[in-house]
Amino acid sequence: MIPYKSIISIDKKRQQAVYLQLANQLIELMKSGILLPNAKLPSSRIMADLIGLHRKTIVACYDELLIQGWLVSIPKKGTYVHAELPLLKPRALEQNHKSIPSKTGFSFYKKDQSNRRLSDRKAGITYVNDGVTDVRLTPIKEIAQIYKSVCNSRLVPRHLGYGSTLGSLELRKVLVTYLNETRGIKLTLDNILITRGSQHGIYLASQLLVKSGDIIIAGTTNYISADYTFVNADAKILRIPVDDHGIDTKAVELICKKKKVKAIYVTSHHHHPTTKTMSAERRLHLLNLAQEYKFAIIEDDYDYDFHYNQAPILPLMSHDIHGQVIYIGSLCKTVAPTFRVGYMIAAKDFVTEAANLRRYIDRQGDPLLELTFARFIQSGSLNRHINKTLKVYRKRRDLFVNQLNELKEFFEFDIPAGGMAFWLRLKRPYTWDQVATIARNHKLEIGEWQRYDLNNNGHNAIRLGFATYNEEEIDSLFDKLHKTMKSLKRQVKL
Amino acid sequence: MIPYKSIISIDKKRQQAVYLQLANQLIELMKSGILLPNAKLPSSRIMADLIGLHRKTIVACYDELLIQGWLVSIPKKGTYVHAELPLLKPRALEQNHKSIPSKTGFSFYKKDQSNRRLSDRKAGITYVNDGVTDVRLTPIKEIAQIYKSVCNSRLVPRHLGYGSTLGSLELRKVLVTYLNETRGIKLTLDNILITRGSQHGIYLASQLLVKSGDIIIAGTTNYISADYTFVNADAKILRIPVDDHGIDTKAVELICKKKKVKAIYVTSHHHHPTTKTMSAERRLHLLNLAQEYKFAIIEDDYDYDFHYNQAPILPLMSHDIHGQVIYIGSLCKTVAPTFRVGYMIAAKDFVTEAANLRRYIDRQGDPLLELTFARFIQSGSLNRHINKTLKVYRKRRDLFVNQLNELKEFFEFDIPAGGMAFWLRLKRPYTWDQVATIARNHKLEIGEWQRYDLNNNGHNAIRLGFATYNEEEIDSLFDKLHKTMKSLKRQVKL
Repeated sequence: MIPYKSIISIDKKRQQAVYLQLANQLIELMKSGILLPNAKLPSSRIMADLIGLHRKTIVACYDELLIQGWLVSIPKKGTYVHAELPLLKPRALEQNHKSIPSKTGFSFYKKDQSNRRLSDRKAGITYVNDGVTDVRLTPIKEIAQIYKSVCNSRLVPRHLGYGSTLGSLELRKVLVTYLNETRGIKLTLDNILITRGSQHGIYLASQLLVKSGDIIIAGTTNYISADYTFVNADAKILRIPVDDHGIDTKAVELICKKKKVKAIYVTSHHHHPTTKTMSAERRLHLLNLAQEYKFAIIEDDYDYDFHYNQAPILPLMSHDIHGQVIYIGSLCKTVAPTFRVGYMIAAKDFVTEAANLRRYIDRQGDPLLELTFARFIQSGSLNRHINKTLKVYRKRRDLFVNQLNELKEFFEFDIPAGGMAFWLRLKRPYTWDQVATIARNHKLEIGEWQRYDLNNNGHNAIRLGFATYNEEEIDSLFDKLHKTMKSLKRQVKL
Repeated sequence: MIPYKSIISIDKKRQQAVYLQLANQLIELMKSGILLPNAKLPSSRIMADLIGLHRKTIVACYDELLIQGWLVSIPKKGTYVHAELPLLKPRALEQNHKSIPSKTGFSFYKKDQSNRRLSDRKAGITYVNDGVTDVRLTPIKEIAQIYKSVCNSRLVPRHLGYGSTLGSLELRKVLVTYLNETRGIKLTLDNILITRGSQHGIYLASQLLVKSGDIIIAGTTNYISADYTFVNADAKILRIPVDDHGIDTKAVELICKKKKVKAIYVTSHHHHPTTKTMSAERRLHLLNLAQEYKFAIIEDDYDYDFHYNQAPILPLMSHDIHGQVIYIGSLCKTVAPTFRVGYMIAAKDFVTEAANLRRYIDRQGDPLLELTFARFIQSGSLNRHINKTLKVYRKRRDLFVNQLNELKEFFEFDIPAGGMAFWLRLKRPYTWDQVATIARNHKLEIGEWQRYDLNNNGHNAIRLGFATYNEEEIDSLFDKLHKTMKSLKRQVKL
């Protein structure tokens, strides 16, 4: 007989009921072939004695296994292991029997092309970023307070069930007014879908616009996540030059004359990564081309809210009268990346189809968070927050300018009129590869500089975000950078 | 000269600065060809007089347009419209010039196959659903309180920036223990990805498993959203019979002998829509087949938490020792659909790739909400909530049984041992089409019954959710159903 007493181990302190613990262990014995098909189990009385449990527990366990189909009960004879139970083929002995193996037993497609990995942050290290929000300025307590009052409202149950795939009606209404007022976009409720941030918008657009081999145009330097998203959708990306006036629209025209283009991806306000603003001439030229050749303009306006000298330039969307533009924006960059709330603005037919598609992707957004942001915007808090951070970021930009001026021997840069980053060009013969290696000795982590030149333009530049650092951190960053450049210069001379 | 006074309209009450209102209106004049390239603008002094604004405002406006590239300033001569500015081609006159057109000016792919639309809910109408949570039982105040305390924590800034695409580490840790305890799944942190609910998990799995024409197996009756998700991924779905013991695994074997199968989609706990539980014999058979033929089992365990008679049957995942199973679950069904928090459990290599892919889909989850749920689970509140709702739902199920017993002339059904719905079979010659039409006269909305028989099995059945209705609502629903069936009977007799 099977030595139940030594095999079965019951822990009464566990949350799982004792009869279920027993049932699961008996299942393990059946699966592994120790308890074979047709084997007779001890009667509940005998089993209770054997393993020191109450007889009622054994009965509950056997009942459970009868219902699940592991056991059969034959009247006046007893309880048996089901005759037709197939054995699970045993796993190779060297593997740990208890946990999920590290490799699947089936094949699947690898979809990721980037090998980007977020590394853990360590204290004492200064990390260079490509221009992100300082979340220490996020009015998190105010947002939490609004969230709580949304949840405590008498009407909250209507927001707890399944919601519209277009997003919360309240937030859509508020954004119709807000985007009209701040960006001159003449939209209605039919033109807006609430997304989980800009990336979600780019993904939805890519899925609707691209099938295998369809052509997307993008700059030779371009926002890397957008590039990967289009490649993921099986697009063929054709590259056009980018200069001080943004993307070269004459190059777009040349392509259109030869090939059917599905869409162009632009960051017209500040080209990503070079931070250059697209000129008015090219803006109008691009809109005319889109209409003539019937392609879509995916306008990712990722940092519209951040401008330091003059008012921001109105997006292409505000000039679009033929339904060529898909406008993508978000509140994540402005408030905090953790809040995945953004929007896609386009002609009604496109927005409707995007809302249908998203049902299969993530079903819907977060109505409670969207309501929270509707109130946050409507009360004027968003504008107050933007005005406050703009002042802080402008001051930080100026501190960066002062510091960078002392490193002109090594770097070239323009003072960014907006956004949260410098486009920092390293003078030859120095390379970012060298800088990054030496910087690590000085506890300065430059990050993945390679990603700014995936197409081998040889521009020897990176984005240097300035918004996240306070004065003390800026001093520390440049102290490390000074030391780095000094050692590098010495090395290169030798 | 252009009649600026009558064309320009400034509203000082608007949020937008006056100089920007003026700038945008001048841009409109340039785009529409009223202000042509090379046209000279009035000096700032004259323009100020013309339209009754301060001269400084005009200067600010011109400066803005100079920077944006709309105007050029020629020293000692004045300010001109940029010579190379292309005109925007005017839109057909019949269209409203002010807003985004309803149709795009480019082509895109239609991805939706369902034509499912959520209609607005009207008071006085009883809506039949396919088994959803009663959100009036959701402990929303408790969740809001936890959310607020997460946000007010001193350490909150570390959760406000960009986060892991795998989801919050805290919630993953809590779920490792919770799923081990409640479902016997022996997972580690490497095996879990936090999703935006089950649908998100099905989508991620479909994208990694399927390319054009790859084969997915599913029941002849199946969860419709999963069907559409696989079709969206360009899968070819092969159907197998479903009976009282769930899907027919012998039919799976027959297919595998002839064709390369990528995956099977199963709802083993309660088959959707028929609510039948898969037998132990078939469970083990399916696991063995998956190992032999190297296909994936997508196990969507959508209602594991809801069981009324005995303990739930452990998922296939708990028996998976070869890495065949991708286990998908969520907290949305249990707590409230609005909270899009779920999980995907699989071998490490699959989970890693899914996390990489999701970077391009929606970047990441919601760390604050995930932390909130980590605490909600860890404090035992989730289990208390489940136990509380189980009691309520069991009572409601029993009330439904009593009521349905009085309609046995028309309906056949089994008492569901779990889940939130009956599989309600209508006796011939009656059809759901007839029932739905008459029910509408009695303010009872049956919904889209057609979707339960997309493959024309002729089973004449729908899912009848019971969990959302309180006693009074149950009385009202059956009052309406009684009246409906009575009229229908009369009609059929005539």
